[in-house]
Amino acid sequence: MVLYIIGLGLGDELDISVKGKKIIDKSDVVYLEAYTSILFVSKNKLEEYYKKTIHEVDRDFAEENCDIILEQALKNKVCFLVVGDPLCATTHHDIILRAKQKKITVKIIHNASIMTAIAESGMQLYNFGQTVSIPYFENNYKPTSFYDKIKTNLNNNFHTLCLLDIKIKERTIENIMKNKKIYKPPSFMTINEAIEQLIYCEEIHKQNVITEKTLGIAIVRIGTDDQQIISGNLFKLKSLQYNQPLHSLIICANTLHDIEKEYYDMYLCDS
Amino acid sequence: MVLYIIGLGLGDELDISVKGKKIIDKSDVVYLEAYTSILFVSKNKLEEYYKKTIHEVDRDFAEENCDIILEQALKNKVCFLVVGDPLCATTHHDIILRAKQKKITVKIIHNASIMTAIAESGMQLYNFGQTVSIPYFENNYKPTSFYDKIKTNLNNNFHTLCLLDIKIKERTIENIMKNKKIYKPPSFMTINEAIEQLIYCEEIHKQNVITEKTLGIAIVRIGTDDQQIISGNLFKLKSLQYNQPLHSLIICANTLHDIEKEYYDMYLCDS
Repeated sequence: MVLYIIGLGLGDELDISVKGKKIIDKSDVVYLEAYTSILFVSKNKLEEYYKKTIHEVDRDFAEENCDIILEQALKNKVCFLVVGDPLCATTHHDIILRAKQKKITVKIIHNASIMTAIAESGMQLYNFGQTVSIPYFENNYKPTSFYDKIKTNLNNNFHTLCLLDIKIKERTIENIMKNKKIYKPPSFMTINEAIEQLIYCEEIHKQNVITEKTLGIAIVRIGTDDQQIISGNLFKLKSLQYNQPLHSLIICANTLHDIEKEYYDMYLCDS
Repeated sequence: MVLYIIGLGLGDELDISVKGKKIIDKSDVVYLEAYTSILFVSKNKLEEYYKKTIHEVDRDFAEENCDIILEQALKNKVCFLVVGDPLCATTHHDIILRAKQKKITVKIIHNASIMTAIAESGMQLYNFGQTVSIPYFENNYKPTSFYDKIKTNLNNNFHTLCLLDIKIKERTIENIMKNKKIYKPPSFMTINEAIEQLIYCEEIHKQNVITEKTLGIAIVRIGTDDQQIISGNLFKLKSLQYNQPLHSLIICANTLHDIEKEYYDMYLCDS
């Protein structure tokens, strides 16, 4: 049979495509991937609208029990729902390879992604360099490779999309060691936290990447009714209060094109 | 009132989001932007499914008569439909600025884009550098800046997404001069033509960007039932026959990560 990997888009239960919805209607089993991103509605709301029981899949399940999903897909129409466009995160490439090894047909239903929705900021997608992820710093784990990548992008006069860490259903090292399935509360990095970490990197590496002149655009809950797009220098953006996560951050190229400049000015924080 | 700019996604009338479809249902006027990309269904099919009269907007209309659309949006709910995710091309940033100047509320309904759908190739979006456009060479106009950008991406070990030219409702210079609205037949650059142009650039610039070792992935009609994803070196890819356009081309980084390598091998052209 078929494994359908269906993108849900950015906001709520209505952001699925008509095609994706029709496939769910005719499917036998529906899984929801709930550990690389989140929608802004509850699973119940999705179940109500899609009229299907939805099984939430967390990281443990996907890694340990991927075979269960694939066994079902051998005999049934199985939907695997993913927020955004399903393959933007690197996570789901593995299940497709494993499905193809078992000769299961895989169909991807694409949808909107943060990676192109950010064009709403006015920054041209053609002018972006490599996308970076900013992970939460921990006491003894403070990787700063994103700082070097931003520097490279700035040197080439590219914008950088910074995707901010989210932690869903993570366990403490203690609970992993004890094999206890007790999870920490979910956390979503804010723009303020991300800029704090960027400033930390600047203090360590001193490459003049993050200065008073570094321009950014705060991207908050894009694709929802309470989205925010706010431009300003990074220190200004760090001082603002935003709507609830999800947050992302664009670090702008040093030189903006005319139309980018117009957008930047339009979104300038006014206080 | 409101100007809704609604992404149609990649394939057919069913790729619109449920949210976008609901907005069309309640709208007063519907335009379809038909000059930066195409869907794989006719306007009639869209009209039948969306149950609305759809006004096709060509480049001339959008540039000269944008104000007509905006005047309507002052008093009505106007939908402006765009293939893919509406702001991926740079074209539509202008109408939004002009709408905002007139205090018209603008809402973007995002959708799938080629720029993230290419993740289906297995190449990780995080490993892409700047996206390039390859324009049709003309007798006395052969810009090669995309060649330099691909070189920069390769030097940084990034993949490059090459978007291939499409020409819809273009006029000959003669007909523009005579102000005659007679259009050339539409043309869509094939992967074969794109690689020919890349080889031409190599012959001119001799920077060892396009060689027997340069790996690529042909992306054909992604998001449709007859999509193709085929990997191989560029000379091999140039020799193949593909399904009808739209075509895109990924030029792969010199070093592939393990999972990228697995996908590359899976999609290898077998002849």
